[in-house]
Amino acid sequence: MLTDLSTPSFLVDRPTLNRNCARMRDKAQASGVAFRPHVKTHKSVEIGRIQHAGSTGPITVSTLAEAEVFAKDGFRDITYAVPLAPSREKLERAATLAARVERLSVLIDSDTTLRALEEYAGSHGNVFDVFLKVDCGYHRAGVDPESPDSVQLALRMARSERVRFQGLLTHAGHSYNARDIEEVRRVAAEEAGCLSRFRALLSSEGIDEARRSIGSTPTASVVDRFSDCDEVRPGNYVFYDAFQATIGSCALEDVAVSVLATVIGSYPERGEAIIDAGALALSKDLGPHHVDSGFGYGIVCDLDLQRLPIRIAALSQEHGKLIADAHVPPVGTRLRIIPNHSCLTAAMFDRYAIVERKKVVDEWRPVRGW
Amino acid sequence: MLTDLSTPSFLVDRPTLNRNCARMRDKAQASGVAFRPHVKTHKSVEIGRIQHAGSTGPITVSTLAEAEVFAKDGFRDITYAVPLAPSREKLERAATLAARVERLSVLIDSDTTLRALEEYAGSHGNVFDVFLKVDCGYHRAGVDPESPDSVQLALRMARSERVRFQGLLTHAGHSYNARDIEEVRRVAAEEAGCLSRFRALLSSEGIDEARRSIGSTPTASVVDRFSDCDEVRPGNYVFYDAFQATIGSCALEDVAVSVLATVIGSYPERGEAIIDAGALALSKDLGPHHVDSGFGYGIVCDLDLQRLPIRIAALSQEHGKLIADAHVPPVGTRLRIIPNHSCLTAAMFDRYAIVERKKVVDEWRPVRGW
Repeated sequence: MLTDLSTPSFLVDRPTLNRNCARMRDKAQASGVAFRPHVKTHKSVEIGRIQHAGSTGPITVSTLAEAEVFAKDGFRDITYAVPLAPSREKLERAATLAARVERLSVLIDSDTTLRALEEYAGSHGNVFDVFLKVDCGYHRAGVDPESPDSVQLALRMARSERVRFQGLLTHAGHSYNARDIEEVRRVAAEEAGCLSRFRALLSSEGIDEARRSIGSTPTASVVDRFSDCDEVRPGNYVFYDAFQATIGSCALEDVAVSVLATVIGSYPERGEAIIDAGALALSKDLGPHHVDSGFGYGIVCDLDLQRLPIRIAALSQEHGKLIADAHVPPVGTRLRIIPNHSCLTAAMFDRYAIVERKKVVDEWRPVRGW
Repeated sequence: MLTDLSTPSFLVDRPTLNRNCARMRDKAQASGVAFRPHVKTHKSVEIGRIQHAGSTGPITVSTLAEAEVFAKDGFRDITYAVPLAPSREKLERAATLAARVERLSVLIDSDTTLRALEEYAGSHGNVFDVFLKVDCGYHRAGVDPESPDSVQLALRMARSERVRFQGLLTHAGHSYNARDIEEVRRVAAEEAGCLSRFRALLSSEGIDEARRSIGSTPTASVVDRFSDCDEVRPGNYVFYDAFQATIGSCALEDVAVSVLATVIGSYPERGEAIIDAGALALSKDLGPHHVDSGFGYGIVCDLDLQRLPIRIAALSQEHGKLIADAHVPPVGTRLRIIPNHSCLTAAMFDRYAIVERKKVVDEWRPVRGW
């Protein structure tokens, strides 16, 4: 029971998780696009299987460590969706892993890394599966889809004998900058349109085979149907969080995770309390500050997930500082905190307590490190 | 060598670590006060021993998990300096551990927790060592030293037969709000004065035995000599970080840690690059934003720790976004990032690479979890 569990603990509500997973999978299936969900939010093989209704379907990962653990658990078709560092160590790990699964696709957006892959493949006799990362407006990684250099790089990849060109991949991370669901919808349209236009440029150069892989949880959540793409890669949707609920990707009831904490100091005279969940439990993400600059470090709820008029004003390593509008909870009170950014919060924990309402039913361990 | 190590990696420069540890230990010794350094920043038994010149001296911890691992390694006198949650599980763990070491002191600041300790002790026959946490101005945890209720609580503790009153403990966390070394010095004077005044109140009630335990790295770093206290508990000083260097606790050359990262995307046309150290490697601490609102997520250096004109403007899970004033580093470049807040950054890693200049000489594993 939640009244016995050690605090801080990371709670995953299984019914909500199952519902989130089923909804996104159904949408991909109804849209007729391939479903390659990201596992970076949870990093747990158990949840990877729930994303695929019990099977080990295609997945997306954010680290080679995730890829290695999921491969060991039977996942055979993996895309590593962060640009590969062209170092010997990463190339070796990627090549070793690729030999053990059906397909490990890696991501590049530079001629430097393409050459490193070709050189490695030339001396080791392997062939890497590669996606070209395209920048659809987020301006983090990826080539500019409007630049002739980008088309040239794609053509080089498609024509190289030392890599297998899988297609074009983008991530509309700027959907997280949206203030509401309408803005997310506009970003979703950009994301899908961008790769189709880029593919048309390749097609005019004789390259007709290029999968269009898209995905971000906000954009994937707000569209009724996926179009203008061949596969989708959302990840955060399994858990959702306070950020996603604020920008309109989900309702607050769709958030499947919370951090269980105990009040360890109570100071009614200053309207404050302290919980035993600090920066190392909640992570220090400011949440949707672009929408509400007074957003605290998570949403404070009681054990029934009813929201309380309490704000998490500050985090130090092991202390969370609460400011209460009304009743200051006494020492010993247990609270559940809906995290601002579940990907970062989940990564702070070595184990997840799986719950059904207030009952603990299982414990799963995520992958750590790189 | 740093050119071979997997990225991201957490690097600890041993000569700098040794120097920081020796300097603080020497200052405590020269001041004639007990030295009970905090281990929360590093959570590594190896570094705990370096703090005590090779021995297993008194330490301070921030979690029971740290206490348990350090006790197993031979540390026998431990203060758990976060208010204990009055739950059965925590009381049991604390009592079990206390039975295995010479002394485990726990911290309380409420009658609720005092009663929980007394009740547990009453039915289990043990006696807890306890400190009263006093608020010296940080306004996080701790009783108000000016309130008669606080004196009453301290007297209750001192007169209880079911706990052993160790004394008064404070942490001047507001030293982190300082903008320069002069402000830190003012906070240091407050911190030391506060407990002496409170102890005088207890003395007038007939309680003469109350250790005064103080400590924060900024205040401990800027004083020439510790006074008005019986023991000191700094922790961050072993590593220091960009924050401490900015507010004047140390010089930038005193920072013993950095995160090794690789440039995985380079975009000279927009003056930007991407490294493979994101929020899960660097942690998402804003750094000394109260001094410089444009502070990035760490200080970017080359492999020789020479600072570069590059700012870390944003972090997502596995990407750090660099904005370069001049030269944009090409894909494959290795960089060292001096973290904003080394306690949080260190906690992101399961292992530390111990280096001497650019050579890796050892690997240590910190404690995780709670």
